[in-house]
Amino acid sequence: MSLSAREPARPRVVVVGGGFAGLQVVRKLRDAAVDVTLVDRQNFHLFQPLVYQVATGALSAAEIAAPLRAVLKRQGNVRVLLAEVSDFDLERRQVVLDHLPNGARGERLEYDTLVVAGGSRYSYFGHDDWRERAPELKSLAGALDIRNRILTAFEAAEVEPDEERRQNWLTFVVVGGGPTGVEMAGQIAELAREALRRDFRQVDTRSARVLLVETADRILTGFPPSLSHKAERALEKLGVTPLVGHTVVDVGSASVAIRSASDEVEDVGAHTVIWAAGVAASPLAAALASAGGLQVDRAGRLTVTANLTLPDHPEVFAIGDMVRIAQSDGTIVTLPGVAPVAMQEGRYVARVIRNRLSDRATKDFRYVDKGNLATIGRSKAVADVKGIRLAGFPAWVTWLVVHLFYLIGFQNRLLVVTRWIFSFLTHGRGARIISQSK
Amino acid sequence: MSLSAREPARPRVVVVGGGFAGLQVVRKLRDAAVDVTLVDRQNFHLFQPLVYQVATGALSAAEIAAPLRAVLKRQGNVRVLLAEVSDFDLERRQVVLDHLPNGARGERLEYDTLVVAGGSRYSYFGHDDWRERAPELKSLAGALDIRNRILTAFEAAEVEPDEERRQNWLTFVVVGGGPTGVEMAGQIAELAREALRRDFRQVDTRSARVLLVETADRILTGFPPSLSHKAERALEKLGVTPLVGHTVVDVGSASVAIRSASDEVEDVGAHTVIWAAGVAASPLAAALASAGGLQVDRAGRLTVTANLTLPDHPEVFAIGDMVRIAQSDGTIVTLPGVAPVAMQEGRYVARVIRNRLSDRATKDFRYVDKGNLATIGRSKAVADVKGIRLAGFPAWVTWLVVHLFYLIGFQNRLLVVTRWIFSFLTHGRGARIISQSK
Repeated sequence: MSLSAREPARPRVVVVGGGFAGLQVVRKLRDAAVDVTLVDRQNFHLFQPLVYQVATGALSAAEIAAPLRAVLKRQGNVRVLLAEVSDFDLERRQVVLDHLPNGARGERLEYDTLVVAGGSRYSYFGHDDWRERAPELKSLAGALDIRNRILTAFEAAEVEPDEERRQNWLTFVVVGGGPTGVEMAGQIAELAREALRRDFRQVDTRSARVLLVETADRILTGFPPSLSHKAERALEKLGVTPLVGHTVVDVGSASVAIRSASDEVEDVGAHTVIWAAGVAASPLAAALASAGGLQVDRAGRLTVTANLTLPDHPEVFAIGDMVRIAQSDGTIVTLPGVAPVAMQEGRYVARVIRNRLSDRATKDFRYVDKGNLATIGRSKAVADVKGIRLAGFPAWVTWLVVHLFYLIGFQNRLLVVTRWIFSFLTHGRGARIISQSK
Repeated sequence: MSLSAREPARPRVVVVGGGFAGLQVVRKLRDAAVDVTLVDRQNFHLFQPLVYQVATGALSAAEIAAPLRAVLKRQGNVRVLLAEVSDFDLERRQVVLDHLPNGARGERLEYDTLVVAGGSRYSYFGHDDWRERAPELKSLAGALDIRNRILTAFEAAEVEPDEERRQNWLTFVVVGGGPTGVEMAGQIAELAREALRRDFRQVDTRSARVLLVETADRILTGFPPSLSHKAERALEKLGVTPLVGHTVVDVGSASVAIRSASDEVEDVGAHTVIWAAGVAASPLAAALASAGGLQVDRAGRLTVTANLTLPDHPEVFAIGDMVRIAQSDGTIVTLPGVAPVAMQEGRYVARVIRNRLSDRATKDFRYVDKGNLATIGRSKAVADVKGIRLAGFPAWVTWLVVHLFYLIGFQNRLLVVTRWIFSFLTHGRGARIISQSK
């Protein structure tokens, strides 16, 4: 069988990656006269901005993951393929697939237009061996791993007779002071101070320490400094210790070495380390670059044209966290790795594809910054929307509404609202189960 | 530190196992002047009767799992210990614990009264090597494993060019015609015929075959024959083929050998085999028996007195699926392995413990059979309640109400109702994600 579409009369668009960027391309091609194939190695679209809530048991996995087939059920010109992309053959316009669900490997998928949106992971500053001890807060699997570790740490503290060792179980280190790290640190503090407080008999969960380590001199560097400082104070109130100007230099099995701005290194006893720092583009960026004779930057990102295409390959688009953009004036910009950027790029690519079908040109891509949001804890957030700076409750309500609005699937929205109302009223966490390793 | 309770002035009750039986003991001791320790190797109570719905993606894991600490939060005389029980020392009245969350092993926990409720698993008729290829539909991990396999099978069929191999991916064998097997088979058929029908482009999911293999001459042997036959016809209508009088004699990686009543063995090509047959008591039954100088039966079950205690050890209770009961008249009864039996036994044990505190005797345990329920699919079920036999919609409504009533936690009830309403209206399945192996 050829996996390629059967009606070569219609242009074949292959989209690799069902994240915010890729899914947007597919959906905006709904009425276009093309045959779309969406390839992803997972069968679901992940609502990344709420992954940290799965990591603390506030939400369960299925509530932030929408099956791609269900999302695209009614879109007749799309099919979904569960497979890993191992290589690109730009010459023959083929994508090489691996790990198909039936065990097949090396199958080739033909395209007329290719869109690659592989996303990114966090980077471990060259220390990939830390990944095992400090799971990253990005994938669903990572979030479930982190949930197990956090809950198990409290269980271990409950039965640990040695004072120092108990404190190590009750110390949580979050690496990276971006929105994800900030949200995570705030949620762990709330978990310890409220949700779990009355669950344990021996240990006082309120004695838990939460350290938030950030190399820059303030957290949330994507926000104006005034909001960063408000967020730092809000975190402190929740019981989080923000360590700005600090860098993690080693991760052990029960300790983390942290270097301060004055170059002193301290070993902090901690069993639970959560990683949310650095950027490493998907390996698909390097594969695509190498197929096109291009280089990637230090973070593994590919540089695309102002049309979001590969130089000399107008039929190949690359978008999302894995690219930088070379603007027409020659400057290279790196847009923030957030959902709105990915979605705008996805919509732009769909527009270019549709315009080409009717031989129309498309202006260069231009990112419209609609603002920045980060939540810190129950009823607290910071927002920077077109220069209007909000903090506290109004920012939090904005955050709630925006996130619910973009959450895919009406059913998921309802389930998430139900959970949130319960959490808000009871300070509880509903999905607090430690899943077995098998 | 000693893990044993700190106020030996109050009798120490140790309950092993937080299933229906164990949790009932703990809750009914709420107002008793005892210190209770509940030991479980999992941090949640699992609502077993709905596990099959997790396996088909109708519900997500957290919706049928309630964290034990949360359930018992307000009960001051209980603490929860996350640990595995490796042995019993009846002489010194100690339980030996292993795999504590802080890594400790061999710790000893003292008791004045011990209640062991370890439950059961399915048995593989002596072929434990089949377990790998045919996961059991009992634990949460098993259900998630089965969900991954079912969804992956449809994905594989979608990309499989070979007709015969595609049919093997689309053949599902459910082993065991009890309520769980019947419910599972019905749900797979519904999944193939309705929920997934429009999700795939290449493959017609309605061509899926679902075989339900049962050694006895009818399914649902716990019900009157007339209801069994009604259930068989309802399953056939859904697209399930009930193979009564058939036995699985081998499980391969892509085939199952099934022997018919006339002793013919047929090899059926199938990638997905789901196990819900046989009974194997928890290994805790054998450990407790050996500690008490007793034997277990072929299914690994311990025989307890009419007071649900170990012979010669009135301070040690054993209840639930892992025991048989020797009644005062000498007959040994094996009660069905269902939640109502476990809960009645749990309540009985709590009553005995309370009565002993005030030196009162308790009559022998007597099981009150309130009836039997099994659902087959959307709007279809069978019910046998005190001789009143229902089938179809009225039985299904009864099933719904009873299951929601017993589901622990108001939040979970609301989430489950939301999911069910959606599934009912849309024929969909919300929690249809294939989780990564890591």
